[in-house]
Amino acid sequence: MIINKKRMKKDFDYITSISATETGCTRLSYSDEDRQVRDYIEAGLEEIGAEILIDSVGNIRAKYNPMGSKESSFLIGSHIDTVPYGGRYDGLTGVLASLEALRTIHENEISLRHPLELLIFAEEEGSNFGVTMIGSKYMAKKIGLEDLKELSNKDGVSAYDYIQSRGYNFKPEEDYYISAQNARGMIELHVEQGQILDEEAIDIGIIEAIAGMYTYQVIVEGSSNHAGTTPMIYRRDPLLGASEMIVRLNKLVEGYESAVITVGKIEVSPNASNVIASKVVFNIDIRDVVQEKMVRLAEEAKEVCNQIASDKKLDLDIKLLGSSEVAILDRELIDLIERVAKKTKLNYMRMNSGAVHDNAMLADIIPTAMIFLPSIGGISHSPYEDTDFDDIVTGSQLLLDSVIEYVG
Amino acid sequence: MIINKKRMKKDFDYITSISATETGCTRLSYSDEDRQVRDYIEAGLEEIGAEILIDSVGNIRAKYNPMGSKESSFLIGSHIDTVPYGGRYDGLTGVLASLEALRTIHENEISLRHPLELLIFAEEEGSNFGVTMIGSKYMAKKIGLEDLKELSNKDGVSAYDYIQSRGYNFKPEEDYYISAQNARGMIELHVEQGQILDEEAIDIGIIEAIAGMYTYQVIVEGSSNHAGTTPMIYRRDPLLGASEMIVRLNKLVEGYESAVITVGKIEVSPNASNVIASKVVFNIDIRDVVQEKMVRLAEEAKEVCNQIASDKKLDLDIKLLGSSEVAILDRELIDLIERVAKKTKLNYMRMNSGAVHDNAMLADIIPTAMIFLPSIGGISHSPYEDTDFDDIVTGSQLLLDSVIEYVG
Repeated sequence: MIINKKRMKKDFDYITSISATETGCTRLSYSDEDRQVRDYIEAGLEEIGAEILIDSVGNIRAKYNPMGSKESSFLIGSHIDTVPYGGRYDGLTGVLASLEALRTIHENEISLRHPLELLIFAEEEGSNFGVTMIGSKYMAKKIGLEDLKELSNKDGVSAYDYIQSRGYNFKPEEDYYISAQNARGMIELHVEQGQILDEEAIDIGIIEAIAGMYTYQVIVEGSSNHAGTTPMIYRRDPLLGASEMIVRLNKLVEGYESAVITVGKIEVSPNASNVIASKVVFNIDIRDVVQEKMVRLAEEAKEVCNQIASDKKLDLDIKLLGSSEVAILDRELIDLIERVAKKTKLNYMRMNSGAVHDNAMLADIIPTAMIFLPSIGGISHSPYEDTDFDDIVTGSQLLLDSVIEYVG
Repeated sequence: MIINKKRMKKDFDYITSISATETGCTRLSYSDEDRQVRDYIEAGLEEIGAEILIDSVGNIRAKYNPMGSKESSFLIGSHIDTVPYGGRYDGLTGVLASLEALRTIHENEISLRHPLELLIFAEEEGSNFGVTMIGSKYMAKKIGLEDLKELSNKDGVSAYDYIQSRGYNFKPEEDYYISAQNARGMIELHVEQGQILDEEAIDIGIIEAIAGMYTYQVIVEGSSNHAGTTPMIYRRDPLLGASEMIVRLNKLVEGYESAVITVGKIEVSPNASNVIASKVVFNIDIRDVVQEKMVRLAEEAKEVCNQIASDKKLDLDIKLLGSSEVAILDRELIDLIERVAKKTKLNYMRMNSGAVHDNAMLADIIPTAMIFLPSIGGISHSPYEDTDFDDIVTGSQLLLDSVIEYVG
């Protein structure tokens, strides 16, 4: 039972063409482009008899249950929203692979022991309100509608008001929340958004854990002075302090196996060539797939900053801006996918995800697993994001085969 | 023969009141405030019989020659323009000290062996066109009127057009250019704009050299990638590279006695918390009072950046944005000022200037010297710039006494 490559290609081409921007694709949740793509996918789902429900925040749940089973469902899916000027494959690949799996099952009249549900999570990218995975967090009851009052878009409109203004009715008592009672598990297929598979020339990644994350804001303050008239010994230069912190933080992570640490954002005041800075603000992004190690690394990182600030007589303030826990995916589902991959002689590896995904929000509720496809050059959130279409076909076939192995 | 403290105070109060902005003073060359202050000072100069000439770019030359001497002149003076929202004392102090010296000489009917000239240099701060010391550079023939066509203000009007539109007639053939034939030397009094005198609790600085300067722009490029999905070993992080450069450059300068090195400006792209940077641009400001050492430090600084870029496989481009040479001030004038300071039992020190001044433009043409007064906390180019008025009186008296020692 083979998926239809041409049909998938047509889906990709249509959806990326209607949301094309001068460069890449822009398809924010709740936008007109999002609406058009939903209509297209929903039409495809209705064609095979799936029952479609939309929840308060716009998550789509399409239940395909040809046998009228009373059992709990097995879930597949991902998200369809992009970052502004994003690529073709982030999110959409998992949704179209899932749609194609359902279509193939339908065409082949496979009898299912459990219903299948295709989930399309709303607002994964956080492009509207700066907070990611609003859809999956809502389905996992990690946030409620009241929390949306605290978030606002670039025009200052709250998520609570904006989502309703875009045609969604808030009816939390009727919504579908994921629980161990109503769902047996979920497999999400996604492009890697990193370069490991591409560098290693491997077609498929089977994910064991999704990294947790801490984001800290570090504020370093010193004394602003004239660059010419201030001898080195009188200086309290916060940019020198911040630079030493960045160097030491990158050194620190060498002692960790799977952790990564990144400083990618820095703001300097007054930021003038001939003035010693008064204030530097930078963010530290810390991730690991081992929760205890991530906690220890974060403590050590703060210690490094404190020590340097104290040595250099700089003022320091460190704030936690955000965090998410490590998600350990389900051993049995991972083994099942690996069994299928071996049987079909795929070139696969087990790996971890450094990026957070919707499935990380569900991993403490139901068994979850993820299939990764190679991102060429590791590029993502960019118009240059690319994945070989043959890899998409291979991955979609593995998703289909794994689902049939589970529920067929 | 004692200068009149109350009269000086009145001059300061009047001039700073007519150019007061919501915070500090704003008195850009060629502005209406500048015009009012010129009128006030010119009236004071005419009262003592000084002959006033204005050159093409607005430099004021007031020749006080009560004996009708045919000798070349001795020069005193500074500038009256400020940065936007600047302080009370930068520039203006040297001009009012010089005016007060002339008034005191006039009142005491001192006979002079040489004429005295008070110079007020236009556009020292560079607030109009981004280039400093246009007036003194023009008087020293280091720039000509044609060069003004290349400079423009924030409204896109060239310096060439703007200065004429503000009422100055371009007549380069009639202008007064400083030469060893027409000028015997110059003393400029100025606030330190640094904290050495204040830290050391010393009232007077006698300047031996004015630092030269190199400004470099360093562009470091790497590979932008997702902060979560890119293992440390795959990274080419230009912000890590730039941070290491900043740390090493600050270390490098420890081997130099009088040099300073500053990185105060840095721009990161895309500057996002969860994205490894693609590009970092920062400026290096290098200054020293020993030309050969400054040249060597600049070479070593470039070497450090090249080495780090090469180690980290980053692309590097270093551009020289600007430079000025070290100015060695005149030994005999310095000795004369010191003799006077000793005789009047002043608490003084010899020192260097880390900031560039108008006199640095003249130092290769005529003997020059500078007297510095303490800046409280080293603060300058700020509404909080401050100097104890007693120090201004002490310095102005030293200027007067030194001038009389030279020409009396």
